[in-house]
Amino acid sequence: MVFFEQYDALLSPAERDLVARARGFCAGDFTAELQAAFLRGESFDRRWITSWAALGILGLQAKPEHGGHGASFLCKIRVAQAMARHGFAAAFCLNNLQGQVTRISQAGTAAQREQLLEPLCTGRLLAAPALTEPQGGSDLGALATLARRVEGGWSLTGTKAWITNGTILDGMTVLARLEDGELASFFVLAGAAPAFTRQEIAVPGGRSFRLAELRMEGHVVPNWARLHQPGGALKAAMESVNAARVHVAAMAVASLQAGLAEAVRFSGARHAFGRPLLDHQGLRWELSEVALRLEAANALVFRAACAVNERRPAITLAAQCKKFAVDTALWGLAQCLRAMGAAGAAATCRIPMLLAETRLAAFGDGTNELLMNRIGRNLSRDYGEEAP
Amino acid sequence: MVFFEQYDALLSPAERDLVARARGFCAGDFTAELQAAFLRGESFDRRWITSWAALGILGLQAKPEHGGHGASFLCKIRVAQAMARHGFAAAFCLNNLQGQVTRISQAGTAAQREQLLEPLCTGRLLAAPALTEPQGGSDLGALATLARRVEGGWSLTGTKAWITNGTILDGMTVLARLEDGELASFFVLAGAAPAFTRQEIAVPGGRSFRLAELRMEGHVVPNWARLHQPGGALKAAMESVNAARVHVAAMAVASLQAGLAEAVRFSGARHAFGRPLLDHQGLRWELSEVALRLEAANALVFRAACAVNERRPAITLAAQCKKFAVDTALWGLAQCLRAMGAAGAAATCRIPMLLAETRLAAFGDGTNELLMNRIGRNLSRDYGEEAP
Amino acid sequence: MVFFEQYDALLSPAERDLVARARGFCAGDFTAELQAAFLRGESFDRRWITSWAALGILGLQAKPEHGGHGASFLCKIRVAQAMARHGFAAAFCLNNLQGQVTRISQAGTAAQREQLLEPLCTGRLLAAPALTEPQGGSDLGALATLARRVEGGWSLTGTKAWITNGTILDGMTVLARLEDGELASFFVLAGAAPAFTRQEIAVPGGRSFRLAELRMEGHVVPNWARLHQPGGALKAAMESVNAARVHVAAMAVASLQAGLAEAVRFSGARHAFGRPLLDHQGLRWELSEVALRLEAANALVFRAACAVNERRPAITLAAQCKKFAVDTALWGLAQCLRAMGAAGAAATCRIPMLLAETRLAAFGDGTNELLMNRIGRNLSRDYGEEAP
Amino acid sequence: MVFFEQYDALLSPAERDLVARARGFCAGDFTAELQAAFLRGESFDRRWITSWAALGILGLQAKPEHGGHGASFLCKIRVAQAMARHGFAAAFCLNNLQGQVTRISQAGTAAQREQLLEPLCTGRLLAAPALTEPQGGSDLGALATLARRVEGGWSLTGTKAWITNGTILDGMTVLARLEDGELASFFVLAGAAPAFTRQEIAVPGGRSFRLAELRMEGHVVPNWARLHQPGGALKAAMESVNAARVHVAAMAVASLQAGLAEAVRFSGARHAFGRPLLDHQGLRWELSEVALRLEAANALVFRAACAVNERRPAITLAAQCKKFAVDTALWGLAQCLRAMGAAGAAATCRIPMLLAETRLAAFGDGTNELLMNRIGRNLSRDYGEEAP
Repeated sequence: MVFFEQYDALLSPAERDLVARARGFCAGDFTAELQAAFLRGESFDRRWITSWAALGILGLQAKPEHGGHGASFLCKIRVAQAMARHGFAAAFCLNNLQGQVTRISQAGTAAQREQLLEPLCTGRLLAAPALTEPQGGSDLGALATLARRVEGGWSLTGTKAWITNGTILDGMTVLARLEDGELASFFVLAGAAPAFTRQEIAVPGGRSFRLAELRMEGHVVPNWARLHQPGGALKAAMESVNAARVHVAAMAVASLQAGLAEAVRFSGARHAFGRPLLDHQGLRWELSEVALRLEAANALVFRAACAVNERRPAITLAAQCKKFAVDTALWGLAQCLRAMGAAGAAATCRIPMLLAETRLAAFGDGTNELLMNRIGRNLSRDYGEEAP
Repeated sequence: MVFFEQYDALLSPAERDLVARARGFCAGDFTAELQAAFLRGESFDRRWITSWAALGILGLQAKPEHGGHGASFLCKIRVAQAMARHGFAAAFCLNNLQGQVTRISQAGTAAQREQLLEPLCTGRLLAAPALTEPQGGSDLGALATLARRVEGGWSLTGTKAWITNGTILDGMTVLARLEDGELASFFVLAGAAPAFTRQEIAVPGGRSFRLAELRMEGHVVPNWARLHQPGGALKAAMESVNAARVHVAAMAVASLQAGLAEAVRFSGARHAFGRPLLDHQGLRWELSEVALRLEAANALVFRAACAVNERRPAITLAAQCKKFAVDTALWGLAQCLRAMGAAGAAATCRIPMLLAETRLAAFGDGTNELLMNRIGRNLSRDYGEEAP
Repeated sequence: MVFFEQYDALLSPAERDLVARARGFCAGDFTAELQAAFLRGESFDRRWITSWAALGILGLQAKPEHGGHGASFLCKIRVAQAMARHGFAAAFCLNNLQGQVTRISQAGTAAQREQLLEPLCTGRLLAAPALTEPQGGSDLGALATLARRVEGGWSLTGTKAWITNGTILDGMTVLARLEDGELASFFVLAGAAPAFTRQEIAVPGGRSFRLAELRMEGHVVPNWARLHQPGGALKAAMESVNAARVHVAAMAVASLQAGLAEAVRFSGARHAFGRPLLDHQGLRWELSEVALRLEAANALVFRAACAVNERRPAITLAAQCKKFAVDTALWGLAQCLRAMGAAGAAATCRIPMLLAETRLAAFGDGTNELLMNRIGRNLSRDYGEEAP
Repeated sequence: MVFFEQYDALLSPAERDLVARARGFCAGDFTAELQAAFLRGESFDRRWITSWAALGILGLQAKPEHGGHGASFLCKIRVAQAMARHGFAAAFCLNNLQGQVTRISQAGTAAQREQLLEPLCTGRLLAAPALTEPQGGSDLGALATLARRVEGGWSLTGTKAWITNGTILDGMTVLARLEDGELASFFVLAGAAPAFTRQEIAVPGGRSFRLAELRMEGHVVPNWARLHQPGGALKAAMESVNAARVHVAAMAVASLQAGLAEAVRFSGARHAFGRPLLDHQGLRWELSEVALRLEAANALVFRAACAVNERRPAITLAAQCKKFAVDTALWGLAQCLRAMGAAGAAATCRIPMLLAETRLAAFGDGTNELLMNRIGRNLSRDYGEEAP
């Protein structure tokens, strides 16, 4: 089993231990419960969030002096992949929670750290990033949420849509426009109506993302809530978008690997015409093709992950790996599902859940259309030259 | 231009210099002459082989004490890619010549080194590996060339087919079967008929491979001609097959990059409806898709190249990367050619040559069918398990 | 709108009127209720079956003297496509019910017609074909249900699986093996346990197929229940398989057309960067590609439908059109869903239902693997010759 | 062998005889000579044009009273497919010659018929349509060739590019712009320099198209040379473009069928591991997939051919079938070539010629980009509505 060894070579022993811990976590009832919730059309149980907190992985990338593990981006990717094998949506939610801790730990002020770090790490305060708006999609130029200076703080007005964990979050990092047109980020604690309202976006097959639209109408936050980030809120948002794309890509790869494993095991066990299905060349080649594209996707994701990890420019690579990994995963999962025949229709088969959740992830952090525009923008510069 | 930086990070400064030297070599008349020979339906001129020798890259991987550069497999890959951008067949021929020097330097006896190394390094003795036979293809189990013990040496009888540089070679490393059934390798100097005969295999569009069928009929070679390789001739042959597959894959990627560069430059310069073709979203997306699959192929090839470089097990990875890279290159070059419209039909367009030569390379070192069987063989072991 | 005109040219005015009636039927609450049931994870309401009966289309192909319309296979295809635009599973269920009426009308004995025709036509007696068994899939050679001669009739023992409408049916046409090894068909009325038991196969996303496993254990049916079919039960079963494959293919095409229409309308209305999404060339080309493959699939289905309609040999064509239409529909629906972005995740979007139901249909009446074997069997005869 | 029977059912007995005659024609040395010329990088011998004339098929669609056969468009398609199996370029050239006869017979004046019909029918006067110009491609709006009224006729100035049979033609139908901006067609007899000059466009792999650029510089043609066409020259040009697209698509399908037949025969005869290659499921499925897409392409082409034949609107269908057929043929021929392994590299294998010539045909009569724009233009009207 050679699949993920390229990542492991770059992890520290402590990080490898964290990945192993995450894998151990998944070995229990986790998978079965995720699957059952999906079939009931419900979100997975909140107690798993508490379990993550207890496992200590909410603060995976937070600094050790803040109670975190100080893990690298590669380590986070590997933890996310371990989870995503059992449920894309759950892994995605974990990733969102982790990101908030990381951000406060790495870029928060002393006041923010004091107020937020411990509750975030222990899961008592659930938070999420809030960039997307109903009209503008991921277009930061059209961002319409306004932050107006008021006595003792800021008054926020605007609507954020498609927010992960939105139905249960206690706070969120809001990207908003100041009166001078600049962008700024605020850590916003959820409040009471009418200043703060939320509404679930009930997505069939995707309830575990707990998506919601959150509306602030003159919702006042204190002075300390503003995040002062190196390079500014826009730059931080752009960098976080690259990391998020690689993250989604990595989880798509892991979902595909889980689906492939299910199809390979099934067709190794089920017989037809006196032999295991897998011994029939036609089907074996179909699954072999899935395997090799999976490896190509993983190799590209890994390359992009290293670029993000080392803070090298990653816009094009992140866009390429997200599109390729998600396309490959959706194609490959559909192939695996088909290869299982009627067994793929059984309630025990996990591929439909992996497929439905990965499909939803295709919309987040840049649709294919947006990604293609991103890649195409620099085509002449990146691919028009002879050398090297 | 981020394309090959992942390789470069692992090369030594001296190796990077060798790659630069190879690039410089190609900057002159090389490309134009390769293209002209292709259009005339002829092989490229032999004087380029002399130039390679003068450049000192025939002994790229030979040990320094044997007059070589002691370069890594990754460095050889990069030199091959630099050449393959200008002609797949030429790069393939260079690779074959290099391989013979490497083999004698690394595994030859003192007598072999004394007899062969200097002529091989200087290009006075052109040689090639000779495994494939007319009937058995790449199936080593069916290998029929026999080596019989005779006074003072060995008598070889058998036919080798599809031998690169076969029409001009002065020697070759022949894999043959001993009387006890074991396999052994011999460095065989070409001789005179009737013991040694050769016949060109004139492949339309592929004359630059200089393919030939070579027949030995009781062709006697001296005792010192037998190669005594660590682990035996079969193991050496298997390892060289993995390396060869990664090599072909790497050159396919480089060919695609060259084709993409041509299509991008053309469509950036040609106008339609008042804008460069490349500013039309439909075409830009098509080329962007080529770019991203190119990156995926390159990432997978790099991963396999590292495995070969570090002498880790690479059978599955080498098979996967060859199939994916060649499939991607053939698809991508066809897309680029189509994107150039009628300009792709001009004699100046290099894509048809890259496409024709890369297509021929698909047959060498394992057809897709053989590669799929190789990958499928261990599907349950490699992809049937849950972890990690 | 040129899409289905090729079929219409071959229908009689009365048949065209039937198709129009089916379309009118769908114009009301039908679609919305199907969608709502899908989202609740339930089957669609049984009252729609009653409505079909009232509409007079259960006996679409039954002879006029038996109260039917005597419609052609092409007409049935068109009615099925009109329904399948709103729900693949519902159209599939209708098709199953119709098939039973047709069979009794065209091949039933006087006793069978007297007993069954009126209840079948009016929907008081719901029935389905029952070929597939849990172990053998669609392999008729392995058929294990036995029919033993008993006083006054036949005693049936065996299990039928994946039976459409299985949870609600009152009768079914069972293919069974006689004591002499021959195959025979029986119209079996459902009975009471323990001789007759049924168990739902609860398929996530496919509850509207109402799949069940039905077990007969010495279930006795009267003498008149045996169907005496021209050419025998096996031949009738084979012919019905061809018709069923073309039928599924036709419905897959209609589902794709419905999905494409939804994506085209959405992207014509939604704006980005100051223009409708559909005015952006990249997306427009993606949907144009779906449109053209849809037309190719429809053209191939039509050709196969004509062959079945005219009782010409159709084994290869039926297999080809099923694989191509289902592959195209699954690919195309996924493209359309992706093109809708986040709007595709809304509960109002019908594409996820069309996709889930069409995917399940891929398993019925021959998996891709079985179809490929069928096509490949005569490859040399059908495609190896020069002419014409 | 069911492949083309759908066409045959619509042909008259006399037309079926013409198709048979064309097939008989190809049964001799024709194929071998086309292949040999391709390998030499030359055009096929002109004597085959004389043979076509002797066979009587240059006037296939000309009216019987003009010495033609009055055959339908479907018949012409079938004759073209019979030829295209042996060489795409040759079939394309025949098509061009036929089109000129048809045009004069159906829309020529008495003077034109008197001057031109007999020489065109007998092949003494070779002619071609001349629409395309070097700058404007197929964009008729940018057409720059001017026809100025002069004493006793018209003076033409402009350049036509990519003209089939351009190196040998004696006349051509030129689309030109009048002084009032309207478009008009002229039958132009070739003349002497400097008023009339021609230059070959030497396309590697496509010499049999005999492409040339033809320049008129005040080239004077007589009054009778102007074609007065019903609806005008622009409408006639547009209609001929639709017919030409369907024609190319039909020939692409025939080329693919020829390539598939070669691959099927080869893999039915060559053995590996003790069985014919074709008995290995993996390869058999690959070729079966080619076969089924070939049938889909053929079904779509047939549908478009019927629309053209019946003079129904065919813009979208013609564009769809050209893109789908050419894409499918290029993909399928590449698959067939790969399936032949090293045997595909032999000079006897015809697939490389079919592939090279079909690829060039992709540029004529509308590139994919132009076709996609054409299809996309009416996407909302054609595919945005619910019914029928």
